[in-house]
Amino acid sequence: MILFKKVAIIGIGLIGGSIAKALKQKKLCNQVTGIVHHKETIQKAIAQNVIDLGTTDLTVVKDADLVVIATPVETTIDIAFKIKNYILDKTLVMDVGSTKLEIVKAFDRAFRKNIEFIGCHPLAGSEKKGVDFSDGGIFNNSIAVLTPYKNRINAYNFNKIKNLWQSLGAEIKLLTPALHDKIIAKTSALPHLLSFSLLNTLPKNYFKFVSSGFRDTTRIGASDPQMWNDILISNKREVVFALEDWQKEINKLKKLIQSKNQSHLKKYISSAKAKRESI
Amino acid sequence: MILFKKVAIIGIGLIGGSIAKALKQKKLCNQVTGIVHHKETIQKAIAQNVIDLGTTDLTVVKDADLVVIATPVETTIDIAFKIKNYILDKTLVMDVGSTKLEIVKAFDRAFRKNIEFIGCHPLAGSEKKGVDFSDGGIFNNSIAVLTPYKNRINAYNFNKIKNLWQSLGAEIKLLTPALHDKIIAKTSALPHLLSFSLLNTLPKNYFKFVSSGFRDTTRIGASDPQMWNDILISNKREVVFALEDWQKEINKLKKLIQSKNQSHLKKYISSAKAKRESI
Repeated sequence: MILFKKVAIIGIGLIGGSIAKALKQKKLCNQVTGIVHHKETIQKAIAQNVIDLGTTDLTVVKDADLVVIATPVETTIDIAFKIKNYILDKTLVMDVGSTKLEIVKAFDRAFRKNIEFIGCHPLAGSEKKGVDFSDGGIFNNSIAVLTPYKNRINAYNFNKIKNLWQSLGAEIKLLTPALHDKIIAKTSALPHLLSFSLLNTLPKNYFKFVSSGFRDTTRIGASDPQMWNDILISNKREVVFALEDWQKEINKLKKLIQSKNQSHLKKYISSAKAKRESI
Repeated sequence: MILFKKVAIIGIGLIGGSIAKALKQKKLCNQVTGIVHHKETIQKAIAQNVIDLGTTDLTVVKDADLVVIATPVETTIDIAFKIKNYILDKTLVMDVGSTKLEIVKAFDRAFRKNIEFIGCHPLAGSEKKGVDFSDGGIFNNSIAVLTPYKNRINAYNFNKIKNLWQSLGAEIKLLTPALHDKIIAKTSALPHLLSFSLLNTLPKNYFKFVSSGFRDTTRIGASDPQMWNDILISNKREVVFALEDWQKEINKLKKLIQSKNQSHLKKYISSAKAKRESI
């Protein structure tokens, strides 16, 4: 099912590359153009059958009916302002960033009224980075959160975006940008903060004693610093709230360990276990 | 290579069952007897070829030349006092608990001088529980920490225990019981505490938005509550120290997020990433 004629994807990394591959594999559009920062990515992405055409020139967005911005959050905002004058009327813009409120507000400022846009956040990916890890199947059985804002997308286009994500294998969840950021601060930022801080609190000579539990718990600690810097800074308010809630939780747990009230501690662990098993 | 004649393993769960299976598969002894708490485990463990004989009677330790205690930490200490009068001279006792100082001190009190013992902690296993998950291969490429205490094992027996773990595929690390507990509080207790608290800080209706990062980070949050209650309580001092160090680390990270000094935050994440990639 052809949903779009020409799709331009800005940023052919793990997520941008995976969307490109999936669009081509599932024949959801006629042509995928990759707009990249480093020239060398073009040849690689074409050779790996990720994109049809590649360029470093942002002005080619004028030929697209769908523009996908798949760069770190702060770059996404910069790019919106850089491309706003090239985009033709009726073009649809979407992004895939992990923070939504700051992005959709910037899009609202950047794009004139007859350019439509929608913020999307596919809950897929890994700590890996770059086109080499792109995979058209990563959205299978994942969740795609859509965060429409201020009537900046009409029902017809909204439906096409829904179709796109569903065709990629994702289940759709609708959230306001603000609620998205609140939830993601807890479900995604916290596990990352916890991994970063656990890795940084461990003395160097202790690393040879880690086992699979430590390894799994800190897998996402190897995530991209620029990407995570942007996510944390652009969602600072909710991230700090989530961190403070979690600090209270840790204090509660510390008191349970110190209190020798083993039945309360066991209950606390049992509650965590039940929650983990419910996922 | 036959290292022992008759091995009695008390507790045929994930670790006890895995040791039993590996001993049999690698023919490291003539006979493995499982001593279990619930009668029903006997038939299952024999049917799954985990043990040769099974019983609920602790007095059979008198027939063994190696006794392995593979129960939660507090139970291990209880059992030492329960079996001390049945064990014959020259029998060797080892345990596999995740806390060492409290256990070896209890063994030192419980066992008369001509019973030898050594504390062991195989850094292997998973959040799964019970004989059904036992697997003779889980020690392959793992680390076995040995914590000899106060000359309570001679060189000949120490060498046999080293051979045993090496035959099971583990690399040996020697630590004092106290240093073991200090290291493990950081490498193992912290990731568990972090998983428990992350699961318990997440509102119920947020769970449908978790992705693979959250899932991996909290895998060990489904660990056995009794086992982890015992590990935390028996190593309380070091666990609380480790938790407090980590709380300082989280505060530092929070300040970096709040400060808007993005180069410091990026450096912090890069340092974590490098550490994770070094494992």
